[in-house]
Amino acid sequence: MGLLDEKFLKLGAEYAPGQEVRQDTNEVQLRGEIIAGTPVDFSHGDVDAFEPIPGSLDQFIEGVHIGGKQAYTEYRGSHSIRENIAHKLATFTDSTVHAERNLIITPGTQGALFLAMGSTVARGDKVAIVVPDYFANRKLVEFFDGEIVPIQMDYYSTDTCAGIDLTQLEDAFKAGVKLFLFSNPNNPTGVIYSPAEIRVIAELAQKYGATVIVDELYSRQIFDERIYTHLCAQHIVDPENVITIIGPSKTESLSGYRLGVAFGSAKIIERMEKLQAIVSLRAGGYSQAVLKSWFSEPEGWMAERIAQHQAIRDDLMAKLHAAEGFKVRATEAGSYLFPRLPQLDVTVNDFVKILRLQAAVTVTPGTEFGPQYTDSFRINFSQDHRAAVEAIERIIKVVEGYRK
Amino acid sequence: MGLLDEKFLKLGAEYAPGQEVRQDTNEVQLRGEIIAGTPVDFSHGDVDAFEPIPGSLDQFIEGVHIGGKQAYTEYRGSHSIRENIAHKLATFTDSTVHAERNLIITPGTQGALFLAMGSTVARGDKVAIVVPDYFANRKLVEFFDGEIVPIQMDYYSTDTCAGIDLTQLEDAFKAGVKLFLFSNPNNPTGVIYSPAEIRVIAELAQKYGATVIVDELYSRQIFDERIYTHLCAQHIVDPENVITIIGPSKTESLSGYRLGVAFGSAKIIERMEKLQAIVSLRAGGYSQAVLKSWFSEPEGWMAERIAQHQAIRDDLMAKLHAAEGFKVRATEAGSYLFPRLPQLDVTVNDFVKILRLQAAVTVTPGTEFGPQYTDSFRINFSQDHRAAVEAIERIIKVVEGYRK
Repeated sequence: MGLLDEKFLKLGAEYAPGQEVRQDTNEVQLRGEIIAGTPVDFSHGDVDAFEPIPGSLDQFIEGVHIGGKQAYTEYRGSHSIRENIAHKLATFTDSTVHAERNLIITPGTQGALFLAMGSTVARGDKVAIVVPDYFANRKLVEFFDGEIVPIQMDYYSTDTCAGIDLTQLEDAFKAGVKLFLFSNPNNPTGVIYSPAEIRVIAELAQKYGATVIVDELYSRQIFDERIYTHLCAQHIVDPENVITIIGPSKTESLSGYRLGVAFGSAKIIERMEKLQAIVSLRAGGYSQAVLKSWFSEPEGWMAERIAQHQAIRDDLMAKLHAAEGFKVRATEAGSYLFPRLPQLDVTVNDFVKILRLQAAVTVTPGTEFGPQYTDSFRINFSQDHRAAVEAIERIIKVVEGYRK
Repeated sequence: MGLLDEKFLKLGAEYAPGQEVRQDTNEVQLRGEIIAGTPVDFSHGDVDAFEPIPGSLDQFIEGVHIGGKQAYTEYRGSHSIRENIAHKLATFTDSTVHAERNLIITPGTQGALFLAMGSTVARGDKVAIVVPDYFANRKLVEFFDGEIVPIQMDYYSTDTCAGIDLTQLEDAFKAGVKLFLFSNPNNPTGVIYSPAEIRVIAELAQKYGATVIVDELYSRQIFDERIYTHLCAQHIVDPENVITIIGPSKTESLSGYRLGVAFGSAKIIERMEKLQAIVSLRAGGYSQAVLKSWFSEPEGWMAERIAQHQAIRDDLMAKLHAAEGFKVRATEAGSYLFPRLPQLDVTVNDFVKILRLQAAVTVTPGTEFGPQYTDSFRINFSQDHRAAVEAIERIIKVVEGYRK
């Protein structure tokens, strides 16, 4: 088998969120009746239930009318829009962001993540990633021929921090890891790293001269007034060794415009732009104009959106707690829950297919986030409230038919 | 110097089209007066002079109103839109394109090119590319750690074909090249490969079991009723070894929507989708809806656009022929001219900076398309007709001040 065959074997997308129609369901055996109900796709948020920031489409149309200047921006994005968001991101994260040197606009935060990893991972490099974490993190290290050093996060052991194993992280740095990538809030569990955890991560990175990439995609949607800590605001790590990634695809529901941002290290941003020049040239020009609405939402819009999501979380948690054998930690930020299933006599991949066929509910198998999560699944509960609650009831009902 | 430092040194984007504002012009010495005139940016087409396909924005807005289904498509793109364009591309190229297996929608044709190369180039692979050709081709081979095998194209030796050295191509295949990438019409020269050239390329690829990636971005804008030959329509190469790339960013002026398409080999398309899953997830969902207007332009719209471009070409050619010491071959398709300059006593990179500062004219230095083109520059003449002619006059005037 050739190098590329091996590489692409590791990049399987069949179980990735949004790809469910490509799954082979010929072998799946259903037990019992179809359970009727409004179909719910928990693999991503529902932008029909939670609509984009008001005025986003108007900003886009204005961009189209600006014409050529908006269609063809610098590869790192329109200068005036970088100015606009650099200021807002500096305020949000309490850090310094120069529009000219420290920021790049990308096609989604996925684009930012790809460029950041492509700019920092050389063949054979050891890269520390958290388990569980966003499914693409592992694939990115593999694509760039890095070596994954997993750092365990025991999210059930605590409810005052994320539960990352900091000893393991220091051991990884000692063993030569020069890059640490993690999402905060964590995807898939929805937990937040505590101020103490972030401080230690920053101190270790600084001590060992490592670069840190922090994916803060969901950091604006914080529940229960918890404290959120931006690593870039700690002023512990050399700012040239930190990249922060964020975007308006989740809480703000702008995913259809494919917009993301990376900010931090001027050297890494410069590389990211060079790479973007051969990857996709730039984030869609007209779409970039939509970023003007970001962090400029109407008064109260964000607070209401957070409250609505917290209410959905509470109802789903109550249902799961009442059901036998499920285990779940409450989401602290973002829209993900990562429940553990009771023991089943089918694999989690088959369970996911069964759910879709029998109950019109789409979820993402835990194994996308770490090989050991054969008993967990992720849901994005940014959905119509009532439909989400009914879908969780159907999940619980389906489980009854497949218990071990 | 580390692996990544070396790699990114080769990915310099300072002289790439659209990046001119990032050029260092401190050292540039101007001779003579500023020559006033409407600024013209020949580094890309002007979508204000040649506007997008009528109704494109309406298609986009309709996509936004479709909502979640349009925002979150499969990674390879919306099924119904793939159906729509697969049919149109099959007709256009006289080949078989199954929407389900043979086609992926990407963020621009740049996106398609990146994914196609990432899916076919393994570390150490020998990859044949034409010189001159699109500037990113070389950079892509370098980024994926391939080894470039240049194939010369002597475009001044003939006006009945492109002038590719087919002996050199066969030698390359004999020496182990398994991938050949080229643009047709050629970028930057605007020449078309003859039916005989395409047939021999196809026969050689088939004989040596090589894969061919053909960038046909400008293949709809053919001048003087010339014959254009789609390699995929020859039925010579195993269809699983051919990828064709095309998109609506040029003649159709849809660049601001970032849309491209690759079609052909099911195996390579499948890899490209897996790679897209970690690169940018998908082409912007709402933008994908704009593809409905592609190949469905109003009656006569395309013919008129081609005629307008041919008229601009004719006027620019006349000016360049009348000037002393310029050499240029007439564009056969697309909007590029690649004139050779008289001998100057400044480098082509400095000349490009001088042009911008002294005459408000932006062009791309020949060295972006091959290291030996130190005496050539590329222009995209999809511009306001009168402004383009005046800008060429200014170029000719500036040259006077810097002759050797």
